Amino acid sequence: MSAQPAFAIGLDFGTASVRILIVDVADGTEIATAAAAYASGRDGVIDDERDPNVARQDPADHLASLDAAMRAALAHAAANPRFSAQRVVGIGVDTTGSTPLPVDAAGTPLAMLPDFSAEPPAMAWLWKDHTAHAEAAEITEHVRRAGLPYLTKCGGAYSSEWFWSKILHCERHHPRVAKAAHAWVEHCDWLPGWLIGDTRPQQLRRSICAAGHKAMYHPSWGGLPARDFLESLAPGLSRIRERFAAPALPADRRAGLLDPRVAARLGLPPDIPVAVGAFDAHCGAVGAGVGPGALVKIVGTSTCDCMVAPLDRPLPDIPGVCGIVPESILPGMYGIEAGQSAVGDIFNWFVGRIAPSGYGPAENLHESLTREAARLAPGESGLLALDWHNGNRTILTDPLLTGLIVGETLATTPAEIYRALIEATAFGALRIIERIEEYGVEVAEVINCGGIAEKNALVMQIYADVCNRPMKVSRSPQTCALGAAIFGAVVGGAYPIVADAQRAMTGCRPDPFVPNSARAAVYRRLYALYRALHDAFGVAGQSADLSGVMKELIRIRQSTRL
Amino acid sequence: MSAQPAFAIGLDFGTASVRILIVDVADGTEIATAAAAYASGRDGVIDDERDPNVARQDPADHLASLDAAMRAALAHAAANPRFSAQRVVGIGVDTTGSTPLPVDAAGTPLAMLPDFSAEPPAMAWLWKDHTAHAEAAEITEHVRRAGLPYLTKCGGAYSSEWFWSKILHCERHHPRVAKAAHAWVEHCDWLPGWLIGDTRPQQLRRSICAAGHKAMYHPSWGGLPARDFLESLAPGLSRIRERFAAPALPADRRAGLLDPRVAARLGLPPDIPVAVGAFDAHCGAVGAGVGPGALVKIVGTSTCDCMVAPLDRPLPDIPGVCGIVPESILPGMYGIEAGQSAVGDIFNWFVGRIAPSGYGPAENLHESLTREAARLAPGESGLLALDWHNGNRTILTDPLLTGLIVGETLATTPAEIYRALIEATAFGALRIIERIEEYGVEVAEVINCGGIAEKNALVMQIYADVCNRPMKVSRSPQTCALGAAIFGAVVGGAYPIVADAQRAMTGCRPDPFVPNSARAAVYRRLYALYRALHDAFGVAGQSADLSGVMKELIRIRQSTRL
Repeated sequence: MSAQPAFAIGLDFGTASVRILIVDVADGTEIATAAAAYASGRDGVIDDERDPNVARQDPADHLASLDAAMRAALAHAAANPRFSAQRVVGIGVDTTGSTPLPVDAAGTPLAMLPDFSAEPPAMAWLWKDHTAHAEAAEITEHVRRAGLPYLTKCGGAYSSEWFWSKILHCERHHPRVAKAAHAWVEHCDWLPGWLIGDTRPQQLRRSICAAGHKAMYHPSWGGLPARDFLESLAPGLSRIRERFAAPALPADRRAGLLDPRVAARLGLPPDIPVAVGAFDAHCGAVGAGVGPGALVKIVGTSTCDCMVAPLDRPLPDIPGVCGIVPESILPGMYGIEAGQSAVGDIFNWFVGRIAPSGYGPAENLHESLTREAARLAPGESGLLALDWHNGNRTILTDPLLTGLIVGETLATTPAEIYRALIEATAFGALRIIERIEEYGVEVAEVINCGGIAEKNALVMQIYADVCNRPMKVSRSPQTCALGAAIFGAVVGGAYPIVADAQRAMTGCRPDPFVPNSARAAVYRRLYALYRALHDAFGVAGQSADLSGVMKELIRIRQSTRL
Repeated sequence: MSAQPAFAIGLDFGTASVRILIVDVADGTEIATAAAAYASGRDGVIDDERDPNVARQDPADHLASLDAAMRAALAHAAANPRFSAQRVVGIGVDTTGSTPLPVDAAGTPLAMLPDFSAEPPAMAWLWKDHTAHAEAAEITEHVRRAGLPYLTKCGGAYSSEWFWSKILHCERHHPRVAKAAHAWVEHCDWLPGWLIGDTRPQQLRRSICAAGHKAMYHPSWGGLPARDFLESLAPGLSRIRERFAAPALPADRRAGLLDPRVAARLGLPPDIPVAVGAFDAHCGAVGAGVGPGALVKIVGTSTCDCMVAPLDRPLPDIPGVCGIVPESILPGMYGIEAGQSAVGDIFNWFVGRIAPSGYGPAENLHESLTREAARLAPGESGLLALDWHNGNRTILTDPLLTGLIVGETLATTPAEIYRALIEATAFGALRIIERIEEYGVEVAEVINCGGIAEKNALVMQIYADVCNRPMKVSRSPQTCALGAAIFGAVVGGAYPIVADAQRAMTGCRPDPFVPNSARAAVYRRLYALYRALHDAFGVAGQSADLSGVMKELIRIRQSTRL
């Protein structure tokens, strides 16, 4: 490493805004940060009153927000005498995903062309767009019928959130957009292309994390699914494969150098190395210090749970886990990705949509409900919930599941419901840990990051008590952008390998949340009931006798009163 | 009937207040009405922060409120030139039940003695007191083990709400009160005794409706349960039987004549005939016009569903139905009683405890939620609930069941939940109708009365659509008090039999709620799911595959969007 200070920049395109993080590559110290919300839609998401499944973003919003955030970050950094834009050694990029967008032959997003302006199907189909659930089921069925291996690495079922489902849905329902789509590219592939001044689909460096986790890409079957398979889904669909430049790459590889025009626009010098893109969650795992044995949970509106396992040892397929893809998180490692479709979104729903009164001002409702919920003992409410308000990603991979709450009495309070919803997400988290360990991958530590891990000690304590394990919290409040910056540092030559950069630039807070054994014991009883409901409502072909559930909840409630 | 105008008075002791109704016996026309809330407790109920099962009332409050309400009613009636207190021919009384209270040898409630003042166990144990659920289970088990027939007429399980459970709980947990209790009497037996100036337990005319439905009294086994059985529950318990003057009587029999001192206190002439007491719900059924083939639903905080069937035809025991008792509602008829433990209480819980914001002022929240809920089509919310927030009285007879709601998404609104809760109570109502018809008692018409039937057209329309039957509404807004007044009219000689009085004094509104066939078709699908949840959570030993429930709810929701 140079004795001169050196800096890396992470660009983190989230669901509501883009965040820029400028760090010192020596130790990850934050030099400057800035975020800019996307202009269109509701909280950055273009939705549709008539269909709650629709979630789109306009790529023009991404670029406008990038300009604004970069200006602000550089202005902020300029206050630091050690900083100079000339000393930026590399840029990394992460985005949400799977967030594919249709582009023309030059790689220009259709939504940025006058012909398609303001047309939601021509925009980026945000990760949480669920319009394509029928197509997801169709793809799953098709793969299974054909006896193909494509789903073995992504949990056995294809998701409505993923690349091919969305493209197929567009083919079926928006023929004008589909016809104009020369190719479909992931947002995390397109953005580095834009930075280096070349978005032509065939030239784009494709991210292995996007391709492997969401597009059924795997080296063992030659990359993307075979031409014939794609044609059998929809005539012409194989063009997407043809215009995809294999191999897909991990994010420690260079996509190219910052294009001079883009550099000028952003206020940076030209020719800074730009890393291949990756998904926000995977960069978050890297920025939180993911390595063998460490499960990183990025806990926000949803969660992404990431692990890695050495490539040189055999790893079985883990049913229901979203993806097991070589090098998708760290080079030299399998990346294992799981996640919960909604976590903070469930709390936000309760606060924003149900909005119970009697807890003070609306703007402090999360805080006041959290305060009241923290006064309750586990089991005291007699409530139990399923955390499926946005479907279940892992381990049931079923977007057509919904929420459930049981145990209400005429005395049930909103704070009790709020706590039950938190507990439900903790039980969902535990089910994922169990499943991963059932298949021989030891979870030796859990590192949390993301907004909720940062801010809500009650949630973290409940996770520790429910999972009966310490919950560590990453010391960086923005691990996604930090992970992107780490890849920037590596492609910029500051470190030879990612693990070295992680060792220097990441870490955990010194005070993990530790489980309390009495609370953990109550949660073991509640979790048994959660499992009963989880399997009864979520797993086809299982018969269960649930007639004891309500009574056991009452017994647990009574035992907390002793 | 006399050519002179004649009047009857109904005294209706409800959960929160006592209501007086003075009617013209010729046609039931209301001359005056007045109510007075009980002074103690919360909404008339003395509860316990530490135990949500506790619900008591102070008999002194009953008497104080009776004084106040009678004064107000007579003052109101005095404005009518036809009225004179001298022309009151009879008084009928109804109360809540099973609401037993412990008394001394003179029949004075222990709570009115200085030694026990302000002691909740010495007060009246209100119908909705659930402290005695362990004792209820014990009694059920004991009857079954002994192979005794006592539960055959009350649905096969004894309830925590009923007479013996409460007495046994008091024996076990409040020995000082139990020891001082010379006898236990139902509120509806004690009050007529107080009116005629003689509350000595052995002299009290006992109501067949209280004894038969709540105290395992039946002529076929000689009245109350046998001495040995009671002694085996608790030594000394058989004294309750010994101090019970059999036979229990229907409410068309005279308890006695109004005591001069009581008459003076109330502002009435002495020696007015007073009817034997009855439960509010049964009087409500009488005041709504119950007769063979008519199911009367009293829809308030809970429901009571009453039917009658001729005594001269055999009637099978109906599993899960609270009671089948000769003459308990009408002389010459079996009385059949069923009911839901909470209906309006569930809506009140949602409005009062959850209290969603965004629907305007809190005091209009029922109205605004009803207005929004009325805009929704059946199935549109994708929600389904179980109406067991206060247990399930009929047909599961299980107080340890709780509420459940399934189908929540991140877009679920409070109005959708409100409607789902209404629908849940409608499904519960349908389950009761089905069960009664399964055992050969035809439900030819449904007559609704009570506060919710009166005021909430949406609830009544949903009941019509869910049950796929017209829902008639009684024309009297206070059928309980009217039924009591009808018994007053009969014991006062205005009519020879109750049916004649009903024909003259009761009726329905001209505009019943009629089912819409399209809505009914959707509700048939939803009801199938309700049945699946009902049986899975409510019936022991049944295994069910519930994995299709959430998906069917989504299919129904999608079909409503076509």
